Amino acid sequence: MQIKDLGEQGILQIVQKFCPPDIIGDDGAILDFPNSRNLVVTSDMLVDNVHFSDRTTSAFDAGWRATAANLSDLAAMGAEPLGITIALGLPASTEVNWLEQLYQGIKECLDQYQTPIVGGDLVRSPVKTIAITAFGHSRLDFKICRHVAQVNQVIVATGIHGLAKAGLEILLKPEIAVNLSDQVKQKFIQAHQRPQPRLDVLKILGEILVSESLPGQFQQPIAIAGMDSSDGLADAITQICRASKVGAYIDGKNIPIPPEMEKLVSEKEAINWALYGGEDFQLILCLPINIGKKLVQKLQYGATIVGVTTACDTDIVLVDSQGLRQKLTSDRSFQHF
Amino acid sequence: MQIKDLGEQGILQIVQKFCPPDIIGDDGAILDFPNSRNLVVTSDMLVDNVHFSDRTTSAFDAGWRATAANLSDLAAMGAEPLGITIALGLPASTEVNWLEQLYQGIKECLDQYQTPIVGGDLVRSPVKTIAITAFGHSRLDFKICRHVAQVNQVIVATGIHGLAKAGLEILLKPEIAVNLSDQVKQKFIQAHQRPQPRLDVLKILGEILVSESLPGQFQQPIAIAGMDSSDGLADAITQICRASKVGAYIDGKNIPIPPEMEKLVSEKEAINWALYGGEDFQLILCLPINIGKKLVQKLQYGATIVGVTTACDTDIVLVDSQGLRQKLTSDRSFQHF
Repeated sequence: MQIKDLGEQGILQIVQKFCPPDIIGDDGAILDFPNSRNLVVTSDMLVDNVHFSDRTTSAFDAGWRATAANLSDLAAMGAEPLGITIALGLPASTEVNWLEQLYQGIKECLDQYQTPIVGGDLVRSPVKTIAITAFGHSRLDFKICRHVAQVNQVIVATGIHGLAKAGLEILLKPEIAVNLSDQVKQKFIQAHQRPQPRLDVLKILGEILVSESLPGQFQQPIAIAGMDSSDGLADAITQICRASKVGAYIDGKNIPIPPEMEKLVSEKEAINWALYGGEDFQLILCLPINIGKKLVQKLQYGATIVGVTTACDTDIVLVDSQGLRQKLTSDRSFQHF
Repeated sequence: MQIKDLGEQGILQIVQKFCPPDIIGDDGAILDFPNSRNLVVTSDMLVDNVHFSDRTTSAFDAGWRATAANLSDLAAMGAEPLGITIALGLPASTEVNWLEQLYQGIKECLDQYQTPIVGGDLVRSPVKTIAITAFGHSRLDFKICRHVAQVNQVIVATGIHGLAKAGLEILLKPEIAVNLSDQVKQKFIQAHQRPQPRLDVLKILGEILVSESLPGQFQQPIAIAGMDSSDGLADAITQICRASKVGAYIDGKNIPIPPEMEKLVSEKEAINWALYGGEDFQLILCLPINIGKKLVQKLQYGATIVGVTTACDTDIVLVDSQGLRQKLTSDRSFQHF
């Protein structure tokens, strides 16, 4: 069945199943907002055959990934999610099942964080288009933004990079994964299809900041330099350094590569995937060394110090495992135009 | 020049001119949020050749109207605007001038309310697509929603209905307006191209509610039934009545028709345009009679009592100027699918 067979009311009924009934049905949504918090907002638009494709992404996964990307942006601002709106443009020939699966993917990703879909729009379009806006609240005493890195901070990357790229490559060219066990293959594919925003890091980071900071050590509010690695680890490091006017020294040996990766590609290519693959949705943070070490420890080594910031306006230098130096550039894997 | 000639950084530079520099440039925007307020959010998506067209709408006006529609949704929830995000999908062949004019229209509409563009997304798409999310804050003691109308309330419509439809018809068929002065023609066209959200009504309504309500007369928070008339006056009345499970009696004589309209169409057609034309972005409110009268008076008769709500689950009846009764239906002018 296609959505044009349902009519507008029928389509709305399907969509509204995924929303809290007391919040939708008006011109907008009214939500409780905690006192003494900032509002954080982020928007993304995804277009069929530009950002997702039936070849590699089911409707469920398209919904999950779009949601995870927006929640990751909130995490990258130090904000906890409050809700999202979804504006959808769909051809009249869209399968009803596709629409339901999209919402199911969105909802299952959100449910992990008890975050509701609070509204949106649903319109006719010649091309499937998903626009999500996520909003959350952040503490007044602590925020994350790009331009506040200082010289001689450690650069911490949560999680592992390159997994999502590996998953995508396996989906596109299954023959490259013949040497991998099904379990490992699934781990890589899962990283691509169902990434997890690192909202879990915020609470831990907040606790460390409170316990480690001596009076006067930080200006209030504490501003941490950071962003997410949605466009790749190299992009995140260069964006932060450029915005903060600092350089960086990245130790290639410290970029964590999962051991299974060597069955897939050379070490050099694995590092490339980690740096430029993108869509890992980890957090990249520049922190005073004591805070950075504590964070790595509290995350039970689910994070790594990959480098340090260097003097103002110096280059961002990557030293590989052979000791060769190269200038790191953003080289974004995905140019929008 | 087309946007593909600029490259992503060039396009971003143009767009960022319209945004406060201290708010953009990160994964999301961090905004001050007043204490003791609710968050109100609304999203719209507009698609080229579905919701706007170069035939009747310049890029400037497309931006203005999209913005006005979102701010009108905030007004319809009783909320003052805090900011908007804009997610844009554009073909690489889009003229740079079109993009600039779109943002100019958005910004000039927002500037009336000191409301900033705080972020968004800009992606490639085969079809021009504009997704706006507006967010605002509403008082904890007073809200507007659809389902709380009560029997024997007056139905107040702000402004005049049918103007936007008249403006659109004049743009599509200029020959129908030969008997109108240029000034009147411009008034109609302006109503279509540059509608004004009725945010001005909120302050006045809030003051009346505080001054008129006796202790215990209202439950806290005061919930007013209302919505905007973006899909037409008839649609707004039927949506509110249906959600509130009440009927209504609408007096056709009380639907204000501008005197110049008779040079354009018959009285019957003018009433039809007022009821079903849509896009006037006025507020339709169901109020206790004393509050309703006071509101009309305070708005200096820039609002009209068009009818009253009637017993639960009765019909919505329109009595025309000849005394003929007809059942009013939503008959929405614009079905999305």
